[in-house]
Amino acid sequence: MAQQHLDPTDPTAEVVNGDALAAYLCAQATEFLRALRLHRETGGTTAGGAEESVDAARLLRRSARRISGSLHTFRPLLDPDWSEEMRPELAWLSGTLGLEHAYEARLERLLLALHRLSGATVVPAQAVDVVPAGGRAAGAARVGAAALGAAGPASPAPERGNLTVGAAKAGALLERQLTLARTRAHSTALQALGSSRFHAVADKVAVLASEVPLTPTAPTTDLRPLAAAAEERLTDAIGALPLVTAGHPYNAEALVHGLSPDPSPHPQDGPWHQVRLLLRLHRYAQEVLRGGSTPVDVGLLAAGQALNRHRDASEAAAAAAQAARTPRIAPATAYALGVLHADQRHEVEAARFAFQQAWQKQTVSAP
Amino acid sequence: MAQQHLDPTDPTAEVVNGDALAAYLCAQATEFLRALRLHRETGGTTAGGAEESVDAARLLRRSARRISGSLHTFRPLLDPDWSEEMRPELAWLSGTLGLEHAYEARLERLLLALHRLSGATVVPAQAVDVVPAGGRAAGAARVGAAALGAAGPASPAPERGNLTVGAAKAGALLERQLTLARTRAHSTALQALGSSRFHAVADKVAVLASEVPLTPTAPTTDLRPLAAAAEERLTDAIGALPLVTAGHPYNAEALVHGLSPDPSPHPQDGPWHQVRLLLRLHRYAQEVLRGGSTPVDVGLLAAGQALNRHRDASEAAAAAAQAARTPRIAPATAYALGVLHADQRHEVEAARFAFQQAWQKQTVSAP
Repeated sequence: MAQQHLDPTDPTAEVVNGDALAAYLCAQATEFLRALRLHRETGGTTAGGAEESVDAARLLRRSARRISGSLHTFRPLLDPDWSEEMRPELAWLSGTLGLEHAYEARLERLLLALHRLSGATVVPAQAVDVVPAGGRAAGAARVGAAALGAAGPASPAPERGNLTVGAAKAGALLERQLTLARTRAHSTALQALGSSRFHAVADKVAVLASEVPLTPTAPTTDLRPLAAAAEERLTDAIGALPLVTAGHPYNAEALVHGLSPDPSPHPQDGPWHQVRLLLRLHRYAQEVLRGGSTPVDVGLLAAGQALNRHRDASEAAAAAAQAARTPRIAPATAYALGVLHADQRHEVEAARFAFQQAWQKQTVSAP
Repeated sequence: MAQQHLDPTDPTAEVVNGDALAAYLCAQATEFLRALRLHRETGGTTAGGAEESVDAARLLRRSARRISGSLHTFRPLLDPDWSEEMRPELAWLSGTLGLEHAYEARLERLLLALHRLSGATVVPAQAVDVVPAGGRAAGAARVGAAALGAAGPASPAPERGNLTVGAAKAGALLERQLTLARTRAHSTALQALGSSRFHAVADKVAVLASEVPLTPTAPTTDLRPLAAAAEERLTDAIGALPLVTAGHPYNAEALVHGLSPDPSPHPQDGPWHQVRLLLRLHRYAQEVLRGGSTPVDVGLLAAGQALNRHRDASEAAAAAAQAARTPRIAPATAYALGVLHADQRHEVEAARFAFQQAWQKQTVSAP
């Protein structure tokens, strides 16, 4: 499908109607079921299977997000009762499956930063055994193993040999806290995958793979105004961001309130997180219009990556601040956590700058 | 004097010889003596006189730096024994007189940063009673008053009302430590101004105001190759700076080693501090060639200001790190000092970026 077909104001463009939406949803539902099968096949194995299990969970979340996003953007074309029941379940699933990986990535980010701040060179930790594996029966047995693995050699963290005492203690504290959170998330994910709630979602997705509950008028309804509305919501939200400030390097905005008594998350990050979600919805809508193929729009990709980095750094900074509130820590540990927090807040600022640059290019290069 | 006269490779340019140097040194020596007289006149008064006393000390240092710098750059034209005896004495004087103000400015910078990081708005503290006042007799009596004034209402610091507990404690700790350092510097400066060593320098400057000890060949020696050599030392030193990195916003370079066990100052800052001094020498050499008028070169000014900011932030960051090593501080205090340290290291990085930008413009706009 050529570029001009995507402009909803172009009267010569081909109409993209509800059939395209149905095809997209069917395809994503099929992907979901394939990921689920892969997950069940690889989940029971150990070591070698762990990586495949990670991929399976990632694919499950990937298709769940796309189905959920399309249900939102193209709501008027779908049976409202079904749609409204489906979306929160998909969000629950995607969120539950993503938490364990998020904690692991956060820990890795913080340990790498501690090494960077100590002037040490590090080989980043490999992602191992990140995601809940196995079905109901295997699950309970693996919780203990994962907890062990996270703290043991199965999940190698960057070495702390070169860290100073404060940085080393800060690293150990963060590892303890985030590993605990990760273990809990792992356990929750296992429970979720074994729950009747999950089976109900999986059943619904299985039905979706063969039959999409479109409204009677959907097959002749043009999708493009709805996709355009999604894009407009995105550009409106971007327009409300402080992009002029963000475009000035070293504006020191992200660390304002860095010592405010209000705990994380920073309220100033909210609008950026929101844009991240709207950008994703826009991308999925474009996929629907393009018959399922991912738009290779380098600017959009760069903007999205900057917002992912923004989110990651924001949450890492909050984790460092949170760890500093642990009772009875040594002053040197608290100092290192303060440096680390500020470092990650500057990553937040750097990510905003990167987004501003990417978006500027995007709007300049757009027709 | 027009711009083309300053190019030493231009054969049509007028020769600027040792007479210009003599005139410049005489003028600076006269400035020095005027500042000294102003200092003695205003030093004895209180409150209203304090600001003039600050100005007097600033002017003293200003001319001392210029005399010392010219002695260095145009060394071959001056009596070597006299010159070699004079320079360290001027450096001692300028350094001693500058310390008290440096500590006060550092404290103000850190307290303002703490307020910014707490999300509070502040009216910056006014510079009051910054510099040692009075001669020998008045001196001893004023040490106590200055020490009192530094901690009391005579030297208003930004209010700490809006700070969080950690930030407030960090601010109080810094204020205690830097006020102590400032009081000591004040006392040292008073002693210096009352010392026979100072009187010997003042006597020499008085002689310089009427008679510059040039070498016999100096009156016919062209100054421009020596000024060009000073500029070359500057450009060589700038060429060795990591300007490509500095030109990338958010390169995160300044905070590397932020947690290294090595205490301040950061070794990576050294070359930048060196360029700051060489830039100053270059500027003074240009003043000599231009018959004493300060070159109004906006690019050079901006570059110099960026390097001043670099130096100030570097030293403020070190002070925060140093304060965090105080025994028995609370973890919340240490955390706030860690955030503050990182914030100032990012100021260092921002200053390098600003220098890179200013220098780039400078070299692009040069003929």
